[in-house]
Amino acid sequence: MKFVQNAWYVAGWALEFGDDLRRVTILAEHLVMYRDSHGTVVALEDRCPHRLLPLSMGRRVGDDIQCGYHGMTFDGTGKCVRVPGQDTIPPQAYVESYPVHERHDIVWVWMGARELANADNIFDMPEFTAPGWDAHQGGQLHLGSHYLNVAENLVDPAHVSFVHPTTLGSAASEDVVVEADTKADPIVAWRWIRDAPPVGFFQEFGGFNGNVDRWHYYYLHLPSTAVIDFGSAAVEERLAECDRDKGVRIFAIHFLTPVDETNTIDRWMHIRNTATNDDAVSRRMDDLFDIAFAEDKLILEAIQEEENRPAKRPPIRVSFDRGPNVYRKRIERLIAAERSAT
Amino acid sequence: MKFVQNAWYVAGWALEFGDDLRRVTILAEHLVMYRDSHGTVVALEDRCPHRLLPLSMGRRVGDDIQCGYHGMTFDGTGKCVRVPGQDTIPPQAYVESYPVHERHDIVWVWMGARELANADNIFDMPEFTAPGWDAHQGGQLHLGSHYLNVAENLVDPAHVSFVHPTTLGSAASEDVVVEADTKADPIVAWRWIRDAPPVGFFQEFGGFNGNVDRWHYYYLHLPSTAVIDFGSAAVEERLAECDRDKGVRIFAIHFLTPVDETNTIDRWMHIRNTATNDDAVSRRMDDLFDIAFAEDKLILEAIQEEENRPAKRPPIRVSFDRGPNVYRKRIERLIAAERSAT
Amino acid sequence: MKFVQNAWYVAGWALEFGDDLRRVTILAEHLVMYRDSHGTVVALEDRCPHRLLPLSMGRRVGDDIQCGYHGMTFDGTGKCVRVPGQDTIPPQAYVESYPVHERHDIVWVWMGARELANADNIFDMPEFTAPGWDAHQGGQLHLGSHYLNVAENLVDPAHVSFVHPTTLGSAASEDVVVEADTKADPIVAWRWIRDAPPVGFFQEFGGFNGNVDRWHYYYLHLPSTAVIDFGSAAVEERLAECDRDKGVRIFAIHFLTPVDETNTIDRWMHIRNTATNDDAVSRRMDDLFDIAFAEDKLILEAIQEEENRPAKRPPIRVSFDRGPNVYRKRIERLIAAERSAT
Repeated sequence: MKFVQNAWYVAGWALEFGDDLRRVTILAEHLVMYRDSHGTVVALEDRCPHRLLPLSMGRRVGDDIQCGYHGMTFDGTGKCVRVPGQDTIPPQAYVESYPVHERHDIVWVWMGARELANADNIFDMPEFTAPGWDAHQGGQLHLGSHYLNVAENLVDPAHVSFVHPTTLGSAASEDVVVEADTKADPIVAWRWIRDAPPVGFFQEFGGFNGNVDRWHYYYLHLPSTAVIDFGSAAVEERLAECDRDKGVRIFAIHFLTPVDETNTIDRWMHIRNTATNDDAVSRRMDDLFDIAFAEDKLILEAIQEEENRPAKRPPIRVSFDRGPNVYRKRIERLIAAERSAT
Repeated sequence: MKFVQNAWYVAGWALEFGDDLRRVTILAEHLVMYRDSHGTVVALEDRCPHRLLPLSMGRRVGDDIQCGYHGMTFDGTGKCVRVPGQDTIPPQAYVESYPVHERHDIVWVWMGARELANADNIFDMPEFTAPGWDAHQGGQLHLGSHYLNVAENLVDPAHVSFVHPTTLGSAASEDVVVEADTKADPIVAWRWIRDAPPVGFFQEFGGFNGNVDRWHYYYLHLPSTAVIDFGSAAVEERLAECDRDKGVRIFAIHFLTPVDETNTIDRWMHIRNTATNDDAVSRRMDDLFDIAFAEDKLILEAIQEEENRPAKRPPIRVSFDRGPNVYRKRIERLIAAERSAT
Repeated sequence: MKFVQNAWYVAGWALEFGDDLRRVTILAEHLVMYRDSHGTVVALEDRCPHRLLPLSMGRRVGDDIQCGYHGMTFDGTGKCVRVPGQDTIPPQAYVESYPVHERHDIVWVWMGARELANADNIFDMPEFTAPGWDAHQGGQLHLGSHYLNVAENLVDPAHVSFVHPTTLGSAASEDVVVEADTKADPIVAWRWIRDAPPVGFFQEFGGFNGNVDRWHYYYLHLPSTAVIDFGSAAVEERLAECDRDKGVRIFAIHFLTPVDETNTIDRWMHIRNTATNDDAVSRRMDDLFDIAFAEDKLILEAIQEEENRPAKRPPIRVSFDRGPNVYRKRIERLIAAERSAT
């Protein structure tokens, strides 16, 4: 299993969790999740330790879960509080519980060793709440592809010209060299396309009349959160790299949840500095993102199928693969370190 | 393969077999079955020894089967009686035949060593034909679950309160202790729920006005036939355990046919001492059983899926698991004994 | 993998290839094929060497293919001619190309060592173009069966009486002995059914009033092209074996393309010396062949399923299996020879 265990992963948007028992699968583990009477989201192992029935098939009894087979009951910490028909509770009668943290209407679960969970390490950025910015939750895309393939796509500005010609890219960027800084976390890869007509997104939302300078910065945070900072400014503004807030700037944020070896959920949202508080613009941007990410899905699922087939020779790597290459190595190192620590 | 070979298994109700060739799968073996011109049911290996075509895709020629590929023909004992285009018949040209026994409109097949087949060992009970009793064949439920999981459910009175709250159980029985006698075959597990309102079944069929004493006896015969003896009597009758015939008594009988490692057919029938010869009651009971057994199916298929997944720790066992535990051990011992004998 | 590599296989009828990129799977390898601006059919490995995206998901740029992920571009020989964003092209950036040959409106691909490809070895017969003969392309049948099972069926006259009773066979031929000559390539198996009523095909197309002499010659060319020469003549003509052109004669030609271990495409056509230039007869013959080959498909897919299951004993062989037996041995020897040569 190529998963980093000691990490926070997104289990869902806050709105996805209510009174009902909900099965969520992360790193090939099934969790049962619900919001208790205090509003706190609980995450437990979704398998009764007795006959293995998923607890998500049982029912809520107050803040506890009663198994649907023999009524064994567990509280929100995973402790068994009742075995019908007997007074004693065997010490092995428990289910694992997972640390949960909710912030900016996003529910995160810690999948590793409980003592290492630290909510300070959860991805954050000031624009979630800063004035002048509008944060908007978008869709969730199920991809039949390993999350490493999905993540690599999110530190890869070069694919935009070919995969998203009507929304995010255009032929003007085909040969623009990608720069990358792979020393820190996040890894970042970027490029500026100077003095070209605006692409689909900025035709709609930029209000530009002439050519623009366009940028794409792809920040990939380990293990699987990506921020794509892209925007445009009129070419006559001669925008400096550090002045991107002065242009029309959009952050597309992707929270990748590895479901199992071949499935990933990409929950995406955006934060923008234009048309804030305009719901129609939010919805229209969602539509454009839906188009673009469906294009990625086609590619990433086809690649996954090919990876599952025998190969005659190793894949080749080219100059703009530096970000993805370093990312994959760093993930492998993290996994190896976790293994040797246990 | 966790199957007991030297045993009689139900291949179907008598009505399921006629002139047509019918494929039946038991213990992961395909059989072709039909009723010959004398009314006797024949069971043969469903695979031509030449090119492996299922004989069930061929056609009847009198009491023989002609293969649909090259016309090789086999009689009801599995002997090849014709190879078109040649006069001699190779000695290896045969298919295996299986002993069949029909009783009480049920067709049984012996899946083990032919010399050990003894129809006296087929499950029977006097109520099939005794006066005052009405025997009625019900449905056949396909379960995507190993037959051991299905059988364990049938020596387990404790699940009734939680899985079948509207038909066979109620909250009143949740904490009533299960008793079990695991010394003999059948294994039996039972309990009495004294002085409680009648459950769904006995609201409909008991004609009770007040509280009742209710019993559930689960008899599990090796390898896979279960008799659930359940009933109720008005509480003021102070019914003794041995006087159950004086109450409203129903036997739900389950004939489990292991199809393969993950599929089981449960053909069920009931025998009752109330409303005998009343077809409307038979049909209404079928409806209630359909509801209850669909609830079991949900549970048993979910359990099977979990069993197929990796486990971090062994399942725990509690007090009312004694019947299932002994059952599973006895099956394992039978299989081990068969293996060491061959 | 039980495939002969050094052989020409049919990739499709000529009409199947045009400007569009088309994925074709042969011997478990994916090829991308298209017709270039000169009308020549190109066949390349359908997998970009960079991120493994199928090139068939990319797009034509002139006579080249541009990958749909990052725009890497390959010419019709498989050579990489562009890596967007960099000037140098890594030497490993290529895809394999496959020799293609088109003849009689059939497109063949060579799947083995390029230096051994010789178009002179492609199956041919004078009746494709000889006067007095009408060649007509029929359908393409997808069979969920290993090509060896399909091919064996095509050197096996004995099955016709039982599998195709309404079209190609009848009870009259059930016991007629099959003759075979297995010394050369093609292997041939045949028989004459003398002085019997015409079968379905020749009731429709022969114009016969009385009994006929009917022949079936099955020629199987390695690795997987079969010609079934069948026809009828009025019994009073006392037709000699070598005078078959004087009867109503039909060649049913089957080009088997092994897709993978369990799937085969059978593209079939016929050449006839009766009702030439009569499209209605061509269509009606197609209909009859569709009926007959659907009967084979049922059998061959059922056999494949049985072959995938465990067997208790080896299959038996009978007199008319000589052709199939020698065919299979010869294929195995070819595969072994190819392996020891590499």
